[in-house]
Amino acid sequence: MTITGRTRLMAILGDPVAPLRSPALFNEAFARLGRDTVFVAFEVPAGELPAAWAGLTRLRNLDGLVVTMPHKEAVVPLLDAFGPVARRTGTVNTVRRRPEGGWEGEMFDGEGFRDGLERAGHPVRGAAILQVGCGAAGRAIAHALAGAGAARLRLHDAAPGRAAALARALTDAHPGLAVAEGAPDTAGQDIVVNATPLGLREGDPLPFDAARLRPPQVVADVIPNPEVTPLIAAARAAGCATVTGRSMHEGQARLAAAWLGIAGWDG
Amino acid sequence: MTITGRTRLMAILGDPVAPLRSPALFNEAFARLGRDTVFVAFEVPAGELPAAWAGLTRLRNLDGLVVTMPHKEAVVPLLDAFGPVARRTGTVNTVRRRPEGGWEGEMFDGEGFRDGLERAGHPVRGAAILQVGCGAAGRAIAHALAGAGAARLRLHDAAPGRAAALARALTDAHPGLAVAEGAPDTAGQDIVVNATPLGLREGDPLPFDAARLRPPQVVADVIPNPEVTPLIAAARAAGCATVTGRSMHEGQARLAAAWLGIAGWDG
Repeated sequence: MTITGRTRLMAILGDPVAPLRSPALFNEAFARLGRDTVFVAFEVPAGELPAAWAGLTRLRNLDGLVVTMPHKEAVVPLLDAFGPVARRTGTVNTVRRRPEGGWEGEMFDGEGFRDGLERAGHPVRGAAILQVGCGAAGRAIAHALAGAGAARLRLHDAAPGRAAALARALTDAHPGLAVAEGAPDTAGQDIVVNATPLGLREGDPLPFDAARLRPPQVVADVIPNPEVTPLIAAARAAGCATVTGRSMHEGQARLAAAWLGIAGWDG
Repeated sequence: MTITGRTRLMAILGDPVAPLRSPALFNEAFARLGRDTVFVAFEVPAGELPAAWAGLTRLRNLDGLVVTMPHKEAVVPLLDAFGPVARRTGTVNTVRRRPEGGWEGEMFDGEGFRDGLERAGHPVRGAAILQVGCGAAGRAIAHALAGAGAARLRLHDAAPGRAAALARALTDAHPGLAVAEGAPDTAGQDIVVNATPLGLREGDPLPFDAARLRPPQVVADVIPNPEVTPLIAAARAAGCATVTGRSMHEGQARLAAAWLGIAGWDG
C-alpha cells in the first residue's frame, strides 16, 4: 500500500484507539482489493466529539467512519440521516457521506454479532437466548436476535430499568417474541450472550454465574480484545461451544464495509 | 507498514491534495526508520480551515501537520506559538503539538528552497539573485536567501506593491543586504528564482523572459509538479544549470521532519 495525495480516507473514531482492530482489518481488505483508500484511527475523547465532528466533516477526502466507544450514542445528534437499525436503537457505529451532502449513520453491532454467531454454526431462529447487558451494543444485539427469529429472549442488566426498557422496545418491534427480564439464569437457554464490558479489563468479575453452563449451550461474548475472556475460558472448560468478540467484530466490519461501498470484502 | 490502532498520525493540510508528494515522502521515511506513524492528506477547502482546525486539534493521536496551499497564511491566527521564521514572514508550513499544550507553527519553505539549492551545488553566499514572485513562499525564500548571505537581491511581483513591501522587510531584517525591486531583468544575475505559481498549469506563460539566460546562470523553480516546467525546460535549452521544485520540496520535507521530531530522515 502506497499512500499518496490521491489516497482516500476512512477512519475509526473512538477512545481509546490503541486496542482497535478495524485499521488492520480494513487496510488488509483495501490491499487485497487494490483500493486506493487508507483506514486510520482518530482518537477523540468523549466530551470533544462535537468539535471534532465539525472539523472532520470538512475533510473532503474522508469517505466514511466507523464509530466506537464512547461515541456510539453521542454521534447521533450530529448526523443528518439514519438507517433503520440506527433509528430503532438510537445508536450508530458506521457513518457515510451522502451523495446529496451531509452524513448518514447506521448500526451494525447487532447484525455483526448475529452474523458472527450464525457463521460459527449457531442459528438464531427458534433459539432460547439469555442476554446480559442492555447498553448501546446490547440494544443493537437484542434487536438483531429478535429480527432473526429467536424464540425467547431473557434480558438482564445491572443498571435498574435498562433491561425492562429494552424488553418493552423489543415487544413493540416484534409482537410475537417472548421477552422477559430478570436474573441472569442460564438454565434452559440455548445461547448465552455477554453484551456487557465485563472481561475487557483484567480482574473483571464474570458477567453472570458460569457454574451451570453445560453443552450444548453456546456462549458468545462481545469483547474482542482479549479474545479469550474469563467467561469464554469458563465456558470452554465446561465443554460449551463459544463465539468470541472477534467473530462479532469481523461480522460488524464485513457489514459496515458493504454499507460503505467496499465491494468484495469476503474475497 | 501495518497501520493499527496504536499507529500515530501526521498529515498534510491543503487543497487540492491529489498532486502532493509529502505523503509518499514521509511514509517512505517512516518505513525506513521503523516508526509507527502514518502520514495522510487532509483535503480542506480555503474557507473551511477554522472549523477543520478546531476539529483536527481534538485528535489526540495526531502529532504534527504540514500545511500547504491555500492555508499557509490562514493557519497563523489559529496557532498558539511560532518559530522565528514564521514570526518574520507571517506564514506557516509545519505545525507541531507542544508538550505544554497548544500548537506551534514554523515555516520551512524558504530554508527548504535554500537547502535544495545549496545541496545541488549552488552556494547562496555572495550571489546576485533575481527572485520573481513575492507571495507567501516568495517571502520565506527571500528571507532565507538573505539570511544565507546573498550579496544582492532583486525582487519582482506582478501584484503592485508586493515586491516593495518585501524589499522593506528584508532591509529591516538584513541591514547590509543590497535589495532592489523592479523589472525581472536576468542580466548580471548569478541565480534566477521563480517563486510564482506560473508553470503549475499547462499553458501558463513563463514568469519572466528566459531569452537572455546564459551559463553559468542557475535557474531555480518552486513548482514541484510538473518537475520540468516550461521555465526549467527553457533554462536547460539555454545550457543553464537548473534546480527544480522537487529539490525545494525535498529540502522543506527534510527540515520539517527534523522539527517534527523525526530523527534520521537522511538515512
